Amino acid sequence: MKVLDGGIGNVQGFLSAAKHAGIKYKNNDLAVLYSQNPCVAAGVFTQNQIKGAPLYITMENLADNSAQAIVINSGNSNVATGQLGLDNAHKMAEIAAQELDVKSSDVLVASTGVIGVQLPIDKVQRGLKGIKSELSKSSDFAGAIMTTDTFKKEICVQADGFMIAGAAKGSGMIEPNMATMLAFLVTDADVEAQQLQQSLKSSVDKSFNMTSVDTDTSTSDMVILMASGRAGQINLDNFQEALDLACLELTKMIARDGEGATKLITCEVNSASSQKDAKAVGKSIINSPLVKTAVYGNDPNWGRLMMAIGKTNAQIEPGKIDIKINQKPVVKDGFAAPDYNNDLLSELFKNNQQINIVVELNIGESSATAYGCDMSEDYIKINAEYTT
Amino acid sequence: MKVLDGGIGNVQGFLSAAKHAGIKYKNNDLAVLYSQNPCVAAGVFTQNQIKGAPLYITMENLADNSAQAIVINSGNSNVATGQLGLDNAHKMAEIAAQELDVKSSDVLVASTGVIGVQLPIDKVQRGLKGIKSELSKSSDFAGAIMTTDTFKKEICVQADGFMIAGAAKGSGMIEPNMATMLAFLVTDADVEAQQLQQSLKSSVDKSFNMTSVDTDTSTSDMVILMASGRAGQINLDNFQEALDLACLELTKMIARDGEGATKLITCEVNSASSQKDAKAVGKSIINSPLVKTAVYGNDPNWGRLMMAIGKTNAQIEPGKIDIKINQKPVVKDGFAAPDYNNDLLSELFKNNQQINIVVELNIGESSATAYGCDMSEDYIKINAEYTT
Repeated sequence: MKVLDGGIGNVQGFLSAAKHAGIKYKNNDLAVLYSQNPCVAAGVFTQNQIKGAPLYITMENLADNSAQAIVINSGNSNVATGQLGLDNAHKMAEIAAQELDVKSSDVLVASTGVIGVQLPIDKVQRGLKGIKSELSKSSDFAGAIMTTDTFKKEICVQADGFMIAGAAKGSGMIEPNMATMLAFLVTDADVEAQQLQQSLKSSVDKSFNMTSVDTDTSTSDMVILMASGRAGQINLDNFQEALDLACLELTKMIARDGEGATKLITCEVNSASSQKDAKAVGKSIINSPLVKTAVYGNDPNWGRLMMAIGKTNAQIEPGKIDIKINQKPVVKDGFAAPDYNNDLLSELFKNNQQINIVVELNIGESSATAYGCDMSEDYIKINAEYTT
Repeated sequence: MKVLDGGIGNVQGFLSAAKHAGIKYKNNDLAVLYSQNPCVAAGVFTQNQIKGAPLYITMENLADNSAQAIVINSGNSNVATGQLGLDNAHKMAEIAAQELDVKSSDVLVASTGVIGVQLPIDKVQRGLKGIKSELSKSSDFAGAIMTTDTFKKEICVQADGFMIAGAAKGSGMIEPNMATMLAFLVTDADVEAQQLQQSLKSSVDKSFNMTSVDTDTSTSDMVILMASGRAGQINLDNFQEALDLACLELTKMIARDGEGATKLITCEVNSASSQKDAKAVGKSIINSPLVKTAVYGNDPNWGRLMMAIGKTNAQIEPGKIDIKINQKPVVKDGFAAPDYNNDLLSELFKNNQQINIVVELNIGESSATAYGCDMSEDYIKINAEYTT
């Protein structure tokens, strides 16, 4: 199993297109992902109770576990837009189906951008006109779904006899509204529908669901996986392993590119008494504004780590907790490690763009890892200075 | 019932002292609150599983529901300091008891400041030497417990036949560690121990427990209430009302003075199907970084409010939600209110230091109000730039 350069274009049978349709003032704002044959498809969606219109249409069209194309626009999230919003999301799928000559129930839709404003469906329609002729192996799909992301997020994993590739957009803001995470994955492996959904859910729980930029949950988040089957049947363990890797790499890219972030933070929690506890502790550390600002300030502030552990409901024994940061002991048995040197650690923070925190609770057998980023003045600027 | 100028010094039988003991480089860092007779006392403590040493000693000394004095130091939180930390917190109570000539089990202790460093008990001892002669009705008690608070937080409520007064410190940082909330309240009312604890818990649940600056929970939070009984028996409903008011006013002061805050945000949630749901929605809005930065940026971003409501587990019907901000309709039936005017609202934000959000879920009978503040670049600066 190895990681190749490039993304979705590497996988046999998948084509894409990216263009400027005028929904945004400039830059690409419309992207299409297309499979040459109908695929088995799986999806995981935001847990926010208030969901964007495209999610309802996509969930509906995924009900038969089949998809052949995905249409994504940026510049408008089509959220809180009522019946007209639903009609427009439905129309977006219909138009794409007609242009691509596929069943409209095999088209999925995703939108990201300003909230509470109706989708300019005429611009989407004009943009999709003749889109089939623009499909290629080398379109800027990963670039076109970017918003204020500062770099493209794509991955391609070559496994034994099959490939998994994907592209994601992270928590950059297009407009003054909430951050949205979208990821689209494709594979040529032949995987049965229920298994595909189960594999995706399992990977997402370990990757995208363990990352956080600011604890806020978008109304538009979705992860889609399409399997064309062209590579035939594969070993399911290999498939899960490759999918885990693809999702994890995209997750790290999203965390590293969080709004205003200067550093990726990973937090591995071991020897917890349950996986739920390990996840709770990891997420509490990754989400703590005091931990995030300390990392930004190159401050190896272990007191804030202990605080973030203690504020969870996880089972802990404070006197048993050990913490290492980038392999240097920081906390031993709940107190400053014997050879703790604040200045050396601060230097280590300054010289690393990735801070790996490893917490040993020393009371059980369970582990989990969470992914996040530090918090700088730029997070405030990005989110305060835009106005609707 | 009315609010008087001043604080603890107004209440008969209570004296205090404040001084610089050298724990911090400069400024007052040691304060004593003293009652001329033993009081019935109640306390509420941090829910963080990792607690500072002073909390263990204070909880132990409160077990008999009796207290006569409280000693507070800043500059050192005595947290994560092991057995020596517990010994020092115990010694702090013993020394104060001797100096004030009260039972050592009637002395409560509180510390706030740097974590993981042993308390300089010799400095505390020197500071407490002869402290009884320094007690007065006009000491700078509320000033002495401030850390990076930008203003004093004190309140005095005159009710029918009794008084309740208090002082609090908010989430300013003394040193590079976590924010700590401390509040000390006194009354001359005569209230039985179990009732006093119940009244305090009830007030704290509606006030201090409904505020948040950054979702992080300190290891040292505590609220103490001492009742001297000198005013005799009182009407319990009046007492609860006065205590609610005192706690609420201190809470608003703490929220308004959150690190880097420029505005107080209150969020009243009505017509929820349970109080738990109303609280969850209020706290989700108050804690959302995207809402906090929008308020800072004078952006009446109702999409972020809907997102923060939707991300809770509270029972909601998106299409029934109404929201007003400073009495102006913003959301009606889940969408932009008919007369919504973004520019007018942005002006309203600019001209007000207090933003009152009222959410009507329109599905039940329960209400709750949460208190918070906006989030500016200064929050990041304050928490990133200090180093241990």
